[in-house]
Amino acid sequence: MSPSLVLGIDPGTAVTGYGVVAYDGRIATLVECGVIRTTANDPLPQRLLEIHEGVEEILARHRPDTMSVEDVFYAKNVRTTIVLGHARGVILLAAQKAALTICEYPPAEIKKAITGTGAATKEQVQFMVARLLRLKSAPQPADAADGVAAALCACLTSSRPKLPELPPMRIPLSKLVK
Amino acid sequence: MSPSLVLGIDPGTAVTGYGVVAYDGRIATLVECGVIRTTANDPLPQRLLEIHEGVEEILARHRPDTMSVEDVFYAKNVRTTIVLGHARGVILLAAQKAALTICEYPPAEIKKAITGTGAATKEQVQFMVARLLRLKSAPQPADAADGVAAALCACLTSSRPKLPELPPMRIPLSKLVK
Repeated sequence: MSPSLVLGIDPGTAVTGYGVVAYDGRIATLVECGVIRTTANDPLPQRLLEIHEGVEEILARHRPDTMSVEDVFYAKNVRTTIVLGHARGVILLAAQKAALTICEYPPAEIKKAITGTGAATKEQVQFMVARLLRLKSAPQPADAADGVAAALCACLTSSRPKLPELPPMRIPLSKLVK
Repeated sequence: MSPSLVLGIDPGTAVTGYGVVAYDGRIATLVECGVIRTTANDPLPQRLLEIHEGVEEILARHRPDTMSVEDVFYAKNVRTTIVLGHARGVILLAAQKAALTICEYPPAEIKKAITGTGAATKEQVQFMVARLLRLKSAPQPADAADGVAAALCACLTSSRPKLPELPPMRIPLSKLVK
């Protein structure tokens, strides 16, 4: 089976974290991670364009087959959550335009897949992200690590059957037709 | 002054209403209106793509200079409001990509600009939309009328100075140089 390439995203209007992870069904390897930053004083449409183009750039560079996006966190501040919805919208749009498989996970599910508990602390998640990817330390900044965690979650909870690739069976006709 | 062309949008995940209105500073004229419908059973990213492409199609057809978008209505159902945020995100993205002037108005402000009161009923708004555009009846379906209302709001509250276009002054050189 050829390794799948997963782009994980932790959406945000100010900082969108991302991580690209290669996964061969057993071992996950970090390919790239980072953040897309927007300027606080820019109007929202301008920031949405920067996020959208930032994601499209990563897609063009790595051509992943899957996007894993952290689901909206129901913040107490409704306005913040709605603005976050705008950012998620342009991120999902980029994935759909590129015909990727899209996975969405609530934050607790990502934590559980990586640490075993949905109530894990940020430090616990970062520790396990580094361990699972055999890194000396967690990816920096923290938002990038959250993007990587989303990608790892899609790898670890992937329900695709991991069948070994067998050569096609060839039965001589003489054995089938007696 | 050449008339400005305003695309008004009432965003929705299921039905996005729109209206294109030409405005010369005094008279507003309806150019086109309609709705972009998405299929309820499709996944959200697919629906976002349809909304985005639908808006881009209208932009390509009419080349408006302004987009007027109804602001998010703080519905009681937070989930619905967040999903609506996704739709608004891809709509604003289309406007920003086309470098339009973007105006956003809360629903009450649109109602007030058109009927004189932010507490107007839907019927009152539709009646006034028809009257202001000199139409026999309100645009159908109701979501299209809401898109037209958003466009009209941008026309009526536009703060751009409405200076008459004067021919360039020509002073004979003889009068300047004695």
